[in-house]
Amino acid sequence: MDNNELNLDQHISQRYNEDLSELHGKAVTMGEMVEKQLKGSIKSLVKADLALAKKVSKNDHDINQKELDVSGRCVEIVALRQPTASDLRLIFSVEKVTTDLERIGDLSKHLGVMSKKLIKKGVSNKYYEDIENLAQQVKKMLKGTLQAFSTLNSDLAIETISSDEGRINRESEALSRQLITYMMEDPRSIKHVLRVLNVAKALERIGNHCENICEHIVYLVKGEDIRYQNLDDVRSNLFSHLD
Amino acid sequence: MDNNELNLDQHISQRYNEDLSELHGKAVTMGEMVEKQLKGSIKSLVKADLALAKKVSKNDHDINQKELDVSGRCVEIVALRQPTASDLRLIFSVEKVTTDLERIGDLSKHLGVMSKKLIKKGVSNKYYEDIENLAQQVKKMLKGTLQAFSTLNSDLAIETISSDEGRINRESEALSRQLITYMMEDPRSIKHVLRVLNVAKALERIGNHCENICEHIVYLVKGEDIRYQNLDDVRSNLFSHLD
Repeated sequence: MDNNELNLDQHISQRYNEDLSELHGKAVTMGEMVEKQLKGSIKSLVKADLALAKKVSKNDHDINQKELDVSGRCVEIVALRQPTASDLRLIFSVEKVTTDLERIGDLSKHLGVMSKKLIKKGVSNKYYEDIENLAQQVKKMLKGTLQAFSTLNSDLAIETISSDEGRINRESEALSRQLITYMMEDPRSIKHVLRVLNVAKALERIGNHCENICEHIVYLVKGEDIRYQNLDDVRSNLFSHLD
Repeated sequence: MDNNELNLDQHISQRYNEDLSELHGKAVTMGEMVEKQLKGSIKSLVKADLALAKKVSKNDHDINQKELDVSGRCVEIVALRQPTASDLRLIFSVEKVTTDLERIGDLSKHLGVMSKKLIKKGVSNKYYEDIENLAQQVKKMLKGTLQAFSTLNSDLAIETISSDEGRINRESEALSRQLITYMMEDPRSIKHVLRVLNVAKALERIGNHCENICEHIVYLVKGEDIRYQNLDDVRSNLFSHLD
């Protein structure tokens, strides 16, 4: 970490320094809760575990409370202290990171809901076993994203965007083609397969939120806003499978 | 507007007051740009207007720049002044509103991209004429949302969430059922119909971002965080069409 970068230990006021560390710590904890939620949803899906699916499909209260907690602390810290520019970067970025984390938690919960439906309706796992590769890539991207956030490592954030986003898009494209083939071969499978496609879309959107978080990390650490620089087209890929 | 509510004219420092008004004004302008983008995309789709679809599908640079502009001003104002709690509410809320506006702009651009594909591939408008009702509801919701934001009217924000969200969900559900019927009747239509389903999903997500903005308006004006209170299940409807 060079001298221009953010350092949580640089503050004159010990109390203020503790405030900022505590804020970052709370957001890191929220990330761990979200990761646990995503892992549970994915596991319920690939193992067809109905009990687990039921559990994760109603399990976002704590994550939501944590977001309100972090959000409230951001406002309090700014109101009580007089943050410098780099501290403001930290506070605004943490606020944005938690918004994306909450969305990931929300999407993970819905993955649980969809998993429950797939299992209850007795959908053959022939239709969703292919989703495991995509799910693994998304889990990997979230892991890299959270690691970059907890260590404030902007290089890892950039690497996570550039390597994982591409892998997710490739897996997702392969999966979509496979699912379309199933539907064309057996039109009676259409409703089931659309449910699986919804799962795939939710996973892709989680990858998208990871990308947002990585961008916030770079802004936080480097003070550069990399949004819209050269990654703007990544999001287009969300809708490109049917080209 | 009662005495506890936010009033942009209450500040002792005239310059600071101007800063806050300017910030709000910039965000309102961004909202108008986004609304124009959405209207263009929807028109290109329902009129099968390829030239317009091409135009809107690459037209988000100005919106992105506006977001960076607003975002930068938020940090500057907080760094230069010592905001009170209610000013901080305004600044943090404006920041969040612009994030949602940017996503609406992004989704509108992708609607343009999808519109271009549907037209170019000669997809019969039999498959997408039904989307017009949903599109009209989403336009209406964005209009109410932007009006609530420009006038800082929390009652209108609450009304917009409660009335429009339900209509969007009903339209979207009806559309999904119709599209599934097309696919089952003629499996050769599957790829085309999936493109139309993607359009419907993007429209729903725009409705979702409108809901987020309305929640930010209520927080901004009333100081109450209504997230997770009783609207938490609205988002679940995103994935409920296949029940």
